[in-house]
Amino acid sequence: MNTLEAYQAHLREIGKLQSTLALLYWDQRTYLPSSGHDARAEVIGQLSKMIFERLTCDELGRYLESLEERDDLSLEDRASVRVVGKAHRRHRAIPSDFYEEFSIARSLSESVWEQAKASSDFTLFQPHLEKMVDYSQKLAQYYGYEMNPYDALLEEYEPGMTTHELRSLIEPLQKQLVPFIKDLMDHGTPPERGFLERDFPIDRQRELSLRTLELIGYDFSAGRLDTTVHPFTITTGPSDVRVTTRYRKEALLPALFTALHEGGHALYDQGIAPELKWSGLDEGSSSGIHESQSRLLENMVGRSLAFWTFFQPMLADVFPELAGVPAEAFYRASNMVKPSLIRVEADEVTYNLHIMLRFELEENLINGKIAVKDLPGLWREAMERYLEVAPEDDARGVLQDVHWAGAMFGYFPSYMLGNLYGAQMFAQVKKEMPDLTERIASGDLTSLIGWLREKVHRFGKIYDPKELIRNITGEDLNASCFVDYITAKYGHVYNL
Amino acid sequence: MNTLEAYQAHLREIGKLQSTLALLYWDQRTYLPSSGHDARAEVIGQLSKMIFERLTCDELGRYLESLEERDDLSLEDRASVRVVGKAHRRHRAIPSDFYEEFSIARSLSESVWEQAKASSDFTLFQPHLEKMVDYSQKLAQYYGYEMNPYDALLEEYEPGMTTHELRSLIEPLQKQLVPFIKDLMDHGTPPERGFLERDFPIDRQRELSLRTLELIGYDFSAGRLDTTVHPFTITTGPSDVRVTTRYRKEALLPALFTALHEGGHALYDQGIAPELKWSGLDEGSSSGIHESQSRLLENMVGRSLAFWTFFQPMLADVFPELAGVPAEAFYRASNMVKPSLIRVEADEVTYNLHIMLRFELEENLINGKIAVKDLPGLWREAMERYLEVAPEDDARGVLQDVHWAGAMFGYFPSYMLGNLYGAQMFAQVKKEMPDLTERIASGDLTSLIGWLREKVHRFGKIYDPKELIRNITGEDLNASCFVDYITAKYGHVYNL
Repeated sequence: MNTLEAYQAHLREIGKLQSTLALLYWDQRTYLPSSGHDARAEVIGQLSKMIFERLTCDELGRYLESLEERDDLSLEDRASVRVVGKAHRRHRAIPSDFYEEFSIARSLSESVWEQAKASSDFTLFQPHLEKMVDYSQKLAQYYGYEMNPYDALLEEYEPGMTTHELRSLIEPLQKQLVPFIKDLMDHGTPPERGFLERDFPIDRQRELSLRTLELIGYDFSAGRLDTTVHPFTITTGPSDVRVTTRYRKEALLPALFTALHEGGHALYDQGIAPELKWSGLDEGSSSGIHESQSRLLENMVGRSLAFWTFFQPMLADVFPELAGVPAEAFYRASNMVKPSLIRVEADEVTYNLHIMLRFELEENLINGKIAVKDLPGLWREAMERYLEVAPEDDARGVLQDVHWAGAMFGYFPSYMLGNLYGAQMFAQVKKEMPDLTERIASGDLTSLIGWLREKVHRFGKIYDPKELIRNITGEDLNASCFVDYITAKYGHVYNL
Repeated sequence: MNTLEAYQAHLREIGKLQSTLALLYWDQRTYLPSSGHDARAEVIGQLSKMIFERLTCDELGRYLESLEERDDLSLEDRASVRVVGKAHRRHRAIPSDFYEEFSIARSLSESVWEQAKASSDFTLFQPHLEKMVDYSQKLAQYYGYEMNPYDALLEEYEPGMTTHELRSLIEPLQKQLVPFIKDLMDHGTPPERGFLERDFPIDRQRELSLRTLELIGYDFSAGRLDTTVHPFTITTGPSDVRVTTRYRKEALLPALFTALHEGGHALYDQGIAPELKWSGLDEGSSSGIHESQSRLLENMVGRSLAFWTFFQPMLADVFPELAGVPAEAFYRASNMVKPSLIRVEADEVTYNLHIMLRFELEENLINGKIAVKDLPGLWREAMERYLEVAPEDDARGVLQDVHWAGAMFGYFPSYMLGNLYGAQMFAQVKKEMPDLTERIASGDLTSLIGWLREKVHRFGKIYDPKELIRNITGEDLNASCFVDYITAKYGHVYNL
């Protein structure tokens, strides 16, 4: 075997272990019986350690060193060396005893967070969150950065993005969204939702989710749909991308939009070129780009009038009790805007403000500008500033999300970036396909999905997000498409 | 860490990989989407290789060498050293290139067998089976043996058992069973089964299986029930023992008896002392002992009049259309005897003859006394001799079982041994608990299960099967309890 072949064989070994880890995790969140959880955590720890060892080993370092010097590699191989090289260096920068200590502390932090949230008791969680901030500050030092330690963390989720760039996206966006929301609330006519206030049997909701996934081109021979507590999509192996969802009998739309959202993630992973299998490139370009695919399907397609025009009869086929409700009523009901406390329940318009708030606080935490003990107060103050609402308890405030408990500082911006990337792509596809709205209204989603496959999905991690969005739209990421999309759509829904 | 601790840590690592492999396998047989199978086979290959490496490594050899010299080990640690030491030596005896070659050839053999069975074409399968025999003969040489190469293979499934001992169990058993079956067929009154000729909706069959598993004390917080093509039970981790089954809408009893059979296996694994977790001792004593637990539950309990006395109302609760059928009718219908072609469909009385035939042929194959090409003819001849029926095609003859395609020579006897162990244990528990039949008839299965937990389950692999059956019954394994049980029960059912 030459170096390139040995390198690829090494990556395949890592890839197989990652597919295995993904299955252990999928099962943990879907079918694992309750008494099996303690041992499963140990098994997951073991597999994670084995992957870590293979990603940081000297052997891989030597392959990379040799391949980085070569100028005869294919586009894919160069990309693989770029992506794997970065992961290798970042992981090696962390002392292994630090990593183990951190992993244990993080598990504990996540379980204490669960209790703290259940009893709305921030003081219980505070010492653990302090540790998570401390570990993350150290991680940033290990990883290294030029301007801002937060950049080193952000890099994990959005390669190449900096705090400075994020701010330059957020500031104008905030300035436009805040008064627009006020305008909607003060002068708009909110949609009518009374016709959705009834029970929807879960077996029929499942039927609708299955049909919806089929409609968008999700391949059931390479995936499946199961139920869980917090829905997610996961690649448990090549040609095996699984979607999960949840149903509540008193609500029809959440499971439908979850199917579209998770389906958007799944189409991305199912669309990655099969040649990239276990190459280090067989995942999305970044968390933000991944989120763009789910939000585009969920919001820009699923919450559009065009979608409801052809989907209403499909829905009425499963729920004949709604046959008399016109498409436009569903469209309006899907687009209610209301500043509220909980991020995961937020509408498309106010959602980014939840992210801005979290970004502001977490960036200050990592830079030591604010203290963990002051977070509950700072949270309430920021909620007033961004959304003019404030939680009465910490469970519905600073304790609502698991991310900080798991030291995922730098992740939240992905959600907002996903909205912006998605809007920029959607504007581009409309430019290239001027009759896209009519196509969607006639039930043709294949045109759109085919475009996404061609422009985004098949490349996996070959391009980093900056390169990708520039290749697709000819522009750098910016917020203007999103603002145009939001103001036009919600001006219409709210009869402004 | 001292040697013992290092040894135990090494076993835990192997154990975690084995739990992982079990989950990959369970998922492959239950939920894996069709396009995911190729990659899954590669992942399973990788994990198997990692386990093989850790089982044969020098480090483990040194631990074992040092621990084998010590006389201060606990009962459990001594047993672990015995069991793991044997596995280590057996695996190391195999050259690693042989093992890889063999694994690949075996995969191929299994897939060709599937095609050959579907088209009833033995000549297609013949060259692969010849290879499997050849590999197995070599394996026997690598493992080593005293008297008979077949002993070396048998040892894998039934530690300590020899071909000679097997023969001395089989010969008297065959002499008693063959004329007894003839007597039943010629002079007995076969049971009536017409009341079972109807459709039984699958959701209610599943309900009945769940209730049946609950009834025998299967712990659903440490397991689950799913559907598959060929039912099996598997330990996918400590406190995680999963049962699978299948349903056919036109047949009620098969799924019920599968629940009892697989439930019997599952109770064994769920009953192993938690202290044995990932110690090399956390599985059944042997394949034969494992089979005894499933057959005892399925046949000696599930096919008894006592069982049906209390179970009939439970069944009628799920299937009210059968409320008028008395317990005794179910009992009789569950015990139909009929010499037939297919092992897995055989009744309790003729079943062992199917095994004897396979043992006779496979022992001769391994000893080179017969040739693979002559198998179809030898099979028909032997079927006539044992069961007085003969298949018209090889699909229902020599091609019916997967075992030989997978080179599992030495496995078939486990099924027969399970029947004998089970009968011997059942006779013993009746001695110790003279009112057992009344207890079962009143719905108390806890007494019996508690006894099995105490005498069999909790020990895992601490005792080898010979020691175990002697500890429990004071006697070596013999066929007399089984013969007594069969002749008494079926004499009654058939009004002899």
